[in-house]
Amino acid sequence: MDPDLPSSSLAVVLVRARNPLNVGAAARAMSNFGVKDLRVVGDYLQPLEAARSAIDAAPVLASAQAFSSVAEAIADCTLVYGTTALGDRDLHHPVDVLRDAPSHVRQNPGRTAILFGSEKTGLSNDELSHCHRLLTIPMARGGVSMNLGQAVAVCLYELHRDAPAQRNLPEPAAAATADDLDRFESLLRETLTAAEYDRRFPGNMGANETRELVRRLGLTSADTTVWMGMLRQVLWKLRQAGR
Amino acid sequence: MDPDLPSSSLAVVLVRARNPLNVGAAARAMSNFGVKDLRVVGDYLQPLEAARSAIDAAPVLASAQAFSSVAEAIADCTLVYGTTALGDRDLHHPVDVLRDAPSHVRQNPGRTAILFGSEKTGLSNDELSHCHRLLTIPMARGGVSMNLGQAVAVCLYELHRDAPAQRNLPEPAAAATADDLDRFESLLRETLTAAEYDRRFPGNMGANETRELVRRLGLTSADTTVWMGMLRQVLWKLRQAGR
Repeated sequence: MDPDLPSSSLAVVLVRARNPLNVGAAARAMSNFGVKDLRVVGDYLQPLEAARSAIDAAPVLASAQAFSSVAEAIADCTLVYGTTALGDRDLHHPVDVLRDAPSHVRQNPGRTAILFGSEKTGLSNDELSHCHRLLTIPMARGGVSMNLGQAVAVCLYELHRDAPAQRNLPEPAAAATADDLDRFESLLRETLTAAEYDRRFPGNMGANETRELVRRLGLTSADTTVWMGMLRQVLWKLRQAGR
Repeated sequence: MDPDLPSSSLAVVLVRARNPLNVGAAARAMSNFGVKDLRVVGDYLQPLEAARSAIDAAPVLASAQAFSSVAEAIADCTLVYGTTALGDRDLHHPVDVLRDAPSHVRQNPGRTAILFGSEKTGLSNDELSHCHRLLTIPMARGGVSMNLGQAVAVCLYELHRDAPAQRNLPEPAAAATADDLDRFESLLRETLTAAEYDRRFPGNMGANETRELVRRLGLTSADTTVWMGMLRQVLWKLRQAGR
């Protein structure tokens, strides 16, 4: 893990999650974004155990820790975020829109916990009282809840968003040079003339018209070669036919 | 919907999705981020029908359109993105990391489609050939696939990320004024003296030491009042006890 990434000092804390599928989905999102520290808080641990026994369980589930209270789960953390859909709740904490969270996480020299509440009720006021800040994902309407696994994925994506790409993306294809385009344009005009297009639509065959038309194509150098091969073939066929 | 948001001109296209739970999860994420246009491509539509009949089906499922080919599904779109985990695939398209997609979507005056492939295989080369650009979510390791519902949620989050918040977040609490802090500090020193702390730890009771100590608390104005009430009570009790 890259120590510069906030994800390397993150713990995801699922509080009273009830659906093993959601626990598994959260763990999978953690794997995707390189977060390894999963903590599950609840009176009973059936959802965690059920998620662990799923066929495609993420390795992060194997090392997940179980706690009976939020206080125990976050004891070693120096920044604790509680996620919330806001709604009409009275807010006693500073609230960060998700995009503003990474800078706080980066500035925290210790471990950061992000708490996600149960599917039905979110985090209780008592659970929120352990948090330093609240975190909210901006949505189309306020107060609606997100699927737990999706909320975890979106939060971890944001924290991983500025990481360098794992694979070098391809260089953009080289654009055609002006010279390429001139040759293409000449060939196009020659072909259109051979097809007697110039007699029917002379207004489209002004020098400026075809020049601009060709420039608007945004051709790559390689594709220009392909198109010119096609035009040459068409021109040859037109001349054959005209003999 | 805000016409300035890319989400208002977006279509989500699920190609050969097999798990109704994933179709439902994608629809829920669309609802959360204000995207209404769901299109499902597949030879058989059982997953869509099953998702539609789920108890908490998102309204977006009711209006979802079914198509038998990618070409038909995207016929009215002027920008078509294909999502991919990259991996070792040969890339014939320009590739955007997700964070770079919103500007392309905003610049597209028409409708933008984002294609998501099947859970197992992603998008085929034939399906990708209908795309103008590829879209990839940066992950901890390249080439691993994301859960379909989570991938939809993350993509739509990025496109909704810069939307204004639906609810005004609370103003940060007013910080204590220098005058507040002076009065707090005086009361603190008086209390510590009454407790004979100054005799045991005189080095902590220099004028600079307590001034800086108090300033490091980052107190709000309201909390300063609370703390001063506590100190006054403690001071009163210390003086009672000392009589």
